[in-house]
Amino acid sequence: MINVAIVGYGNLGRGVECAVKQNGDVSLYGVFTRRNPDDVKTLTGAAVYSVDDILNHKENIDVLIICGGSATDLPKQTPEYAKYFNVIDSFDTHANIPSHFDNVNKAAEENGKTALISAGWDPGMFSLNRLYAEAVLPCGKVYTFWGKGVSQGHSDAVRRIDGVKDARQYTIPVEDALERVRSGENPELTTREKHLRECFVVAEEGADKAKIEHEIKTMPNYFDDYDTTVHFISEEEMKKNHSGMPHGGFVIRSGSTGLQGENKHTVEYSLKLDSNPEFTASVLIAYARAVYRMNKEGSTGCKTVFDIPPAYLSPKSAEELRKTLL
Amino acid sequence: MINVAIVGYGNLGRGVECAVKQNGDVSLYGVFTRRNPDDVKTLTGAAVYSVDDILNHKENIDVLIICGGSATDLPKQTPEYAKYFNVIDSFDTHANIPSHFDNVNKAAEENGKTALISAGWDPGMFSLNRLYAEAVLPCGKVYTFWGKGVSQGHSDAVRRIDGVKDARQYTIPVEDALERVRSGENPELTTREKHLRECFVVAEEGADKAKIEHEIKTMPNYFDDYDTTVHFISEEEMKKNHSGMPHGGFVIRSGSTGLQGENKHTVEYSLKLDSNPEFTASVLIAYARAVYRMNKEGSTGCKTVFDIPPAYLSPKSAEELRKTLL
Repeated sequence: MINVAIVGYGNLGRGVECAVKQNGDVSLYGVFTRRNPDDVKTLTGAAVYSVDDILNHKENIDVLIICGGSATDLPKQTPEYAKYFNVIDSFDTHANIPSHFDNVNKAAEENGKTALISAGWDPGMFSLNRLYAEAVLPCGKVYTFWGKGVSQGHSDAVRRIDGVKDARQYTIPVEDALERVRSGENPELTTREKHLRECFVVAEEGADKAKIEHEIKTMPNYFDDYDTTVHFISEEEMKKNHSGMPHGGFVIRSGSTGLQGENKHTVEYSLKLDSNPEFTASVLIAYARAVYRMNKEGSTGCKTVFDIPPAYLSPKSAEELRKTLL
Repeated sequence: MINVAIVGYGNLGRGVECAVKQNGDVSLYGVFTRRNPDDVKTLTGAAVYSVDDILNHKENIDVLIICGGSATDLPKQTPEYAKYFNVIDSFDTHANIPSHFDNVNKAAEENGKTALISAGWDPGMFSLNRLYAEAVLPCGKVYTFWGKGVSQGHSDAVRRIDGVKDARQYTIPVEDALERVRSGENPELTTREKHLRECFVVAEEGADKAKIEHEIKTMPNYFDDYDTTVHFISEEEMKKNHSGMPHGGFVIRSGSTGLQGENKHTVEYSLKLDSNPEFTASVLIAYARAVYRMNKEGSTGCKTVFDIPPAYLSPKSAEELRKTLL
């Protein structure tokens, strides 16, 4: 059995707790929280400890799954815990991956631990598909589309507007752009041509809806480069129709082969996810298995999904994989 | 530079020759053939040697790419050449992979060589996607659909019928079955429900077309379990519209997460290939790079795509991959 523990009990932490139940070779030692442990009730009755005591539990934990946010939690937590534990996170600020990697790598290497950063679906499964498709079709172009799905960052940005009580923002890939990419045309696409943004807003009573809509549509970086639609709805409708956290997207690479590049090929990978955090959690568990195995083999330091032989993700033996999945 | 050589100069061998040109770190030492080398003209002017002399070229070749057929060539060639070379093949008789692996592994291990079998798209990229999706969504079901594409084996079977001058068989996934799988329904599908077979036949003059059609549709294993359509066409039409070797397909896994399995997820990978052999050849080149690297690191014996860290397929450094593709 691989004993994992969770640091941080939000949506992702709860997703990991559920994912453990689906994996017979993984067991959950407990959850570590910054809150008062007595105030945290877990979904499955898993033990809850204060994160301040975590080092006392070191010997009982094979892999620590760090479920904090990428903005401020993970840049501190992952390098710190990599001194004492094998760790895995889902750090997703793409631009800061190189420095995060270096920090975690140093801590893990110096202490003989194995770490894996940026596991999830993007970065994660999408990254793998970008790499595989590029390696196989070097003469080509790759496109990543996200959605249809809820963007937490954009929803939060709308919620900060005066007069907004609640908001949900969906990122939606433009169907026509997808079709052009699939056709092998390799188009140059602007930000506006790739994705739409759709907002559902609950306004405070008496709020100026026209003003809210204008503020959303002109918000720099978040919305002004996109075609955005805004719908005002009731609190009840928000709760009924928009309380899930669906997401997904597409990685499509088109390339050519042949002496004159005369033959076209399209590789497409797509995800349709009812629950973004639960799917990310499921990826974390599979890679936690790989981290555990690599550490046992003496392969220490920081890794990414690019460094992990696929077989390490599966509980099946190499023989069984060759027989049943190859 | 990685020096590769080709054994067997058919469609796949020619595909490898073209693929080398797209990879700046790979160079083609030459082609080895069972025919008289003087009778073989390569597409790019690559040198041609008799396969009988291959051991004399041992020192010049980093990886031997064996482009024979799975029925009789590869079971003999790959274990034999793995004694002297790092080798890679696209062995695709799924049921015989375990024994082929054992034979190749023994030869490679005893001689400090690195081998990789069954690279291509199925087995190959499809296998990877079956494994990744199963590891991430253990509670679910995976489906593989092939086509639309030309099946060489089925085309050959039709050509063997009395009165048939030429034939081409397309395997076509049933759209309705694809949609049911994508919906997350996890249906039980019969052979007939998953794929259609469509045949284009050039009949000999005066041949009994009704008899040919009946023989095709009732042919055991090849056609009798499928809904098959047969079109009789002219030689000119065959040449004009059916001389390519397109193929492709879909790997779709649907699974659920959450405490009660309440959230559904669908992972879909698909290929649309103008040229089946050229795409397979492109996969072989990427994995030849990995074989070369693993041998340099002292990792010998037989591997499959499941054993190869994705980063080994790319000419880019680990830093560059993390920065640009993760």
